[in-house]
Amino acid sequence: MRTEQVLAAIERERERHERELVELLRIPSVSTEPERAQQVRRAAEWVRRALADAGCQARLVETARHPIVYAERPAPSGRPTVLVYGHYDVQPADPERDGWSRPPFEPVIAGGNIYARGASDDKGQMLAWVHAARAWHQAAGGPPVGLKFVIEGEEEIGSPNLGPWIAAHRDLLAADVVAISDMDQFAPGMPALTYGLRGLLYVELRVYGPAEDLHSGIYGGAVMNPATALCRVLGRLHDERGRVAVDGFYDEVRPLEPWEREMFAALPHDDARYAAELGVPALVGEEGYSTLERVWARPTLEVNGLFGGFQGPGAKTVLPGYAGAKLSMRLVPDQDPAKVYAGLRRTIERLMPPGVRWDLGAPGPGATASGAARRAPLAQSPEAAPAVLLERSSPFAAAAARAIAAGFGREPVWVRSGGTIPVVLLFKQHLGLDAVLMGYGLPDDNKHGPDEKLCLEDFHRGCRTSALFFAEVARAAGARAG
Amino acid sequence: MRTEQVLAAIERERERHERELVELLRIPSVSTEPERAQQVRRAAEWVRRALADAGCQARLVETARHPIVYAERPAPSGRPTVLVYGHYDVQPADPERDGWSRPPFEPVIAGGNIYARGASDDKGQMLAWVHAARAWHQAAGGPPVGLKFVIEGEEEIGSPNLGPWIAAHRDLLAADVVAISDMDQFAPGMPALTYGLRGLLYVELRVYGPAEDLHSGIYGGAVMNPATALCRVLGRLHDERGRVAVDGFYDEVRPLEPWEREMFAALPHDDARYAAELGVPALVGEEGYSTLERVWARPTLEVNGLFGGFQGPGAKTVLPGYAGAKLSMRLVPDQDPAKVYAGLRRTIERLMPPGVRWDLGAPGPGATASGAARRAPLAQSPEAAPAVLLERSSPFAAAAARAIAAGFGREPVWVRSGGTIPVVLLFKQHLGLDAVLMGYGLPDDNKHGPDEKLCLEDFHRGCRTSALFFAEVARAAGARAG
Repeated sequence: MRTEQVLAAIERERERHERELVELLRIPSVSTEPERAQQVRRAAEWVRRALADAGCQARLVETARHPIVYAERPAPSGRPTVLVYGHYDVQPADPERDGWSRPPFEPVIAGGNIYARGASDDKGQMLAWVHAARAWHQAAGGPPVGLKFVIEGEEEIGSPNLGPWIAAHRDLLAADVVAISDMDQFAPGMPALTYGLRGLLYVELRVYGPAEDLHSGIYGGAVMNPATALCRVLGRLHDERGRVAVDGFYDEVRPLEPWEREMFAALPHDDARYAAELGVPALVGEEGYSTLERVWARPTLEVNGLFGGFQGPGAKTVLPGYAGAKLSMRLVPDQDPAKVYAGLRRTIERLMPPGVRWDLGAPGPGATASGAARRAPLAQSPEAAPAVLLERSSPFAAAAARAIAAGFGREPVWVRSGGTIPVVLLFKQHLGLDAVLMGYGLPDDNKHGPDEKLCLEDFHRGCRTSALFFAEVARAAGARAG
Repeated sequence: MRTEQVLAAIERERERHERELVELLRIPSVSTEPERAQQVRRAAEWVRRALADAGCQARLVETARHPIVYAERPAPSGRPTVLVYGHYDVQPADPERDGWSRPPFEPVIAGGNIYARGASDDKGQMLAWVHAARAWHQAAGGPPVGLKFVIEGEEEIGSPNLGPWIAAHRDLLAADVVAISDMDQFAPGMPALTYGLRGLLYVELRVYGPAEDLHSGIYGGAVMNPATALCRVLGRLHDERGRVAVDGFYDEVRPLEPWEREMFAALPHDDARYAAELGVPALVGEEGYSTLERVWARPTLEVNGLFGGFQGPGAKTVLPGYAGAKLSMRLVPDQDPAKVYAGLRRTIERLMPPGVRWDLGAPGPGATASGAARRAPLAQSPEAAPAVLLERSSPFAAAAARAIAAGFGREPVWVRSGGTIPVVLLFKQHLGLDAVLMGYGLPDDNKHGPDEKLCLEDFHRGCRTSALFFAEVARAAGARAG
């Protein structure tokens, strides 16, 4: 009943919602550009006012660079609290270099889309949650759940100050679930619930041969070439079936469940078209799994960078003194990054030929660093993040699915992402919270490119969905209590 | 009898020979430094006068950069002609940066050595041949052989103008053998005859994956990583016994003969000390061969450069669009570079995993070239040079061995070099001539480093040896004629 009133209010306020989106998009809050720090702050202030207008206690939290907008509204007695995460900063947009059709900070509505930097990433998606909160506030005296908003201004520069702040404010941020809209639907007309993200283990492998580069004629044949040794190892980290040949790599991998394989198989996906888009002659990967299964739910090991010896034009007959590679593993539930790291170390130990020294650790100072820097031991604390998975049995996942179904008028598909969203891990690790990932964008929104857009109808559906999510969370909690 | 007179003259002229060496070493004929072009010419003129003084018709041959000194003296009727090659240009010498103990162009004699840039490489060694010619001219009315001198001024910059000139002057340069002293004895008191050089085949292998670098989270698992594919191939180009696993690679390799293995084994060589000097934990190479056998007389394949993806400091989760390697093979008799190249191509074809495109050819424009340049096809004409070997049965080899034995008072050891001396190939390919390589230097002469030196007594022994070589070549020819 109250939900109906809220949805009606959202319907009535379509124009205002669009107008306010345009307002926010006009502020060039490019977090990486120092000369725009004041614009970033203007956007923070704009969001703070909007959240205050939605009945929250809202304030700016100062950090070493751009402020976090924090807002809260207490939960009705016995009700759960939803923590909404989003960001008000945007990627740079260079109209000259990147080929924008229109000035990136002068929003234009055309063909049902709104075009501007930040439209999809993340101002439009984030604002859907602010508008939902205001609709509840104005049409029903407040939502049936407690609300906390953490809207940061440094997402596009790696969120350097968010983690420490979250870690230092566990009590303040206590909640039941995190809601994030900073991703995509599967396709137009196919809303999605992203229930899994892969984790990451990023390392560097260095192989040291002779103290100096040697003449490959005079010395070739006397010593192990470190570039050869590196390739020997890296070339054996996958088997003939495309599986990662690291000791114990799959020991704790949770198999895909039948419903997942069915769900992914039912999604429209064309391998040939995908290969053509990427410019590869064929898709290749772990045998026995579809492309979507491989990128979303199977662990991988990729060489991200490779270096050693002479890289200039033409020929130089050098036997390099060292060679190295940057490697990353995408992890899936229930792989433990520390165990994978230990397995990788054992595997390298086994595969590395004699006659060289090697080091494995956190990514180092780069190929062009000085000899001393290159030969300094790598830190034994590589970047590592476990995968995250929202269990299908989670009441919050069910609440999100129902909200999306009602808000978008279509059951969501359950998808995963092959990437890693660091903030999801921050909330999990520091606050113990699961996140529901409800993408209101589309894959062709061109988020970091020119002519970024957001489908306006999806923006309005997002407002409805966010409002419905508050009601569904409250209902789920009530059902459990009852 | 005449030879005795010539040797006596050389003994008498020791002081003059040293004085003239000092004179020549005072001229900073650094061929790579444009501001020293006049000094380079001064050195050429100095050498021309010295050769005229030795009874030769001597002149400067102009080239696009530094002149070649060419001199000749006709052979006595029915006698063979020796073509002496050397160079009067020197490496740069930066006293500040490189840490010279004394100004590099102010020669100093100390502890039996003469210290100056070019002392060993190649002014001192080359001058021994000029002095030998003059001694024959002055003490015996001329040598018992015809002489041709080709003393270039561009050796240290890759001899860009020598090859075309030789190719265009085959009649002028017709001779019976080439003599070169631009290398080392095996050790102090161990004069050497270098009878073999390895050849070279230098190529680049490029592996192309997606059209652009991809995000390794979003796409990792969907496509073959070109860096992984490259390592897979490169890591399989050697087998477990350290042999090169390229199709047909050893088919035409001439085995080491028993006398060679005995000769090399008898040489003083300490693997542990050699490993320590190079800074490697152990020496590694083809099983069943000693270190000297491996670097001198066995073919190798080395990765000279390796590149792809992100090489900077820290981490970047990129799935690279391409990866590449520069590879060189050192060839031995009787490998044919064209057949080795074809075998390498077949091997790569067999080892390369699906899902990538690749190219093999002459070394390309380098890792940092533009995308278009990087994706242009590699030229199908890689740098290739066969190995050279002076047969032990060659009368010129025997003549050189006898000359060294008499000149140095000790039988030479027969050694090979793992490197490639391009001018030796020029004379072989254009004139059909074998070269005798008679090193008067020592391995610790620091030829391209600070405080370059030449042992003065070896310089005098070199003068004697060169003079004796003329007599031995004449005697060998007479023996054949008789």
